Amino acid sequence: MAAFSFDKLVIVGVGLIGGSLARALRERGNTGGDTGGAREVVGVGRTAAATARACELGVIDGAAALDDDRALAAALAGADIVLLAAPVAQTRPLLERIAPFLDAATVITDAGSTKADVVAAARSALGARIGQFVPGHPIAGREASGVEAALPDLYVDRNVVLCPLPENAPAAVARIEDMWRAAGATVHEMAPPQHDRVLASVSHLPHVLAFAYVEQILQSRDAALRFAFASGGFRDFTRIAASSPEMWRDICIANRDALLEEIDSYTAVLAALRTAIETGDAAALEAVFTRSRAARADWQLRAAQPAAANGEPSK
Amino acid sequence: MAAFSFDKLVIVGVGLIGGSLARALRERGNTGGDTGGAREVVGVGRTAAATARACELGVIDGAAALDDDRALAAALAGADIVLLAAPVAQTRPLLERIAPFLDAATVITDAGSTKADVVAAARSALGARIGQFVPGHPIAGREASGVEAALPDLYVDRNVVLCPLPENAPAAVARIEDMWRAAGATVHEMAPPQHDRVLASVSHLPHVLAFAYVEQILQSRDAALRFAFASGGFRDFTRIAASSPEMWRDICIANRDALLEEIDSYTAVLAALRTAIETGDAAALEAVFTRSRAARADWQLRAAQPAAANGEPSK
Repeated sequence: MAAFSFDKLVIVGVGLIGGSLARALRERGNTGGDTGGAREVVGVGRTAAATARACELGVIDGAAALDDDRALAAALAGADIVLLAAPVAQTRPLLERIAPFLDAATVITDAGSTKADVVAAARSALGARIGQFVPGHPIAGREASGVEAALPDLYVDRNVVLCPLPENAPAAVARIEDMWRAAGATVHEMAPPQHDRVLASVSHLPHVLAFAYVEQILQSRDAALRFAFASGGFRDFTRIAASSPEMWRDICIANRDALLEEIDSYTAVLAALRTAIETGDAAALEAVFTRSRAARADWQLRAAQPAAANGEPSK
Repeated sequence: MAAFSFDKLVIVGVGLIGGSLARALRERGNTGGDTGGAREVVGVGRTAAATARACELGVIDGAAALDDDRALAAALAGADIVLLAAPVAQTRPLLERIAPFLDAATVITDAGSTKADVVAAARSALGARIGQFVPGHPIAGREASGVEAALPDLYVDRNVVLCPLPENAPAAVARIEDMWRAAGATVHEMAPPQHDRVLASVSHLPHVLAFAYVEQILQSRDAALRFAFASGGFRDFTRIAASSPEMWRDICIANRDALLEEIDSYTAVLAALRTAIETGDAAALEAVFTRSRAARADWQLRAAQPAAANGEPSK
């Protein structure tokens, strides 16, 4: 007999992120282990067709369409947790749509890559019920997307950041923590601005830099020649420029303030390196390159370990 | 009986690049195939100790130290080809050192990542004998360095760019082309400024951008926290920041003019993206991201094919 952490999880948006959580919690619950899981996972999609594939694959136990009042009410009734796993720009309309059907005991969380804007959207949509919303961000992904790409171990040893609000009851935060731990993740807490600054730095900025780099080659008059002689370093450096344009457009706008700060500080560092190159300041160049290489090597060594071992805030 | 392309190859600097060519030509020659190779490969190092490991590993047939006049003269006597496989900044002193011992029939080439500065150094060192020098650049490498990392197939299906000088006899250029083809490479010709511009774009600029990115994180007040939450995209984007500081310091200075142009044009593209983010211009962001992704995907598809199939100048 399996020890379930909770009875009913509703996932709004059953793609890679939502589907992987569904698989993790259902398959763990069914193994009878003591790590917990969900007794029932219900998927919610824009239409019935949107969740059909997830049902076929057995990723979810049941489904409801957002545009069907009765089905949506039935799906949300008695839910322990609702996870929003849709683009961050949809946070407010989605919460407005489900709010009338929410039980008072249900805890809502999300999987968005930005947090300050998500919190603002949630406050606006939920009003006095904002205490039911615990903002979150699982830092995991794959190049592939969609429910077909969902993996039960996507979150194993990965970091999940929660950004609890002053209005959250400790028990509500604990329920979301338990859910992610049951999926194998390490859970950390940060304030929303800290989360957004850290993610702007280690994720959003490099995406912008990689997109800008490929764009700069495209704007050159001998772009085809350049691409023809691009090699292994180019391949790794530009891999993230193959990411979803719509998703990154939304992230850039959602996390604008933090991202602009990172772009400005990066531009200043690049300008300093430019000056060192122009003046032939070999010592300055070597100093920067040596520091960078050492930091990258150190990161590589630590990357195999969970972040909790690295002295950052965790819970 | 093997069909050797030539009798004697002298490699100055038997590390990854020189050692891989030695292995390619000796092992191909010894297989008796019809692709050609070298009957004898002699390594030249700064001291006897510098080539000892290459001798032990059987990568070269014999060795000479640069500081030993008699050994150097013997090594260079009757050489068909001399390959300089040392940092570009050493081109001039190395050529000055070996010039007095060079046969008139020997063709010299190099493996440097930049070409305009190498040509200038060669003209200065060789004077009227500049026709013996055919500038070249095999676009291949590994993260590991040193002769232990040398591979006989490092150049198979890789691009080699030659930058023939007006003073080069066609037969001299053909001899170097044959050597690289015997190692499995595809040979292209470019003028030195074109080579330097293309490499500044697809290799030197991304290294500077990656080093600058890690440096920018290091300069932040919460660098440890940022590194702790860096993930897969960060790993690929920063891989080239683990490259040799000394080598990249030299390349930045050697290819200064072309690199500064690329940095300036990149900075302009980044500034335009910054403006789109600041003004919330979703359409502009999506347009750039979509173009970049398509170009990156197209490159990935073509990357498996030799560059000659992509319409750039080749010979």
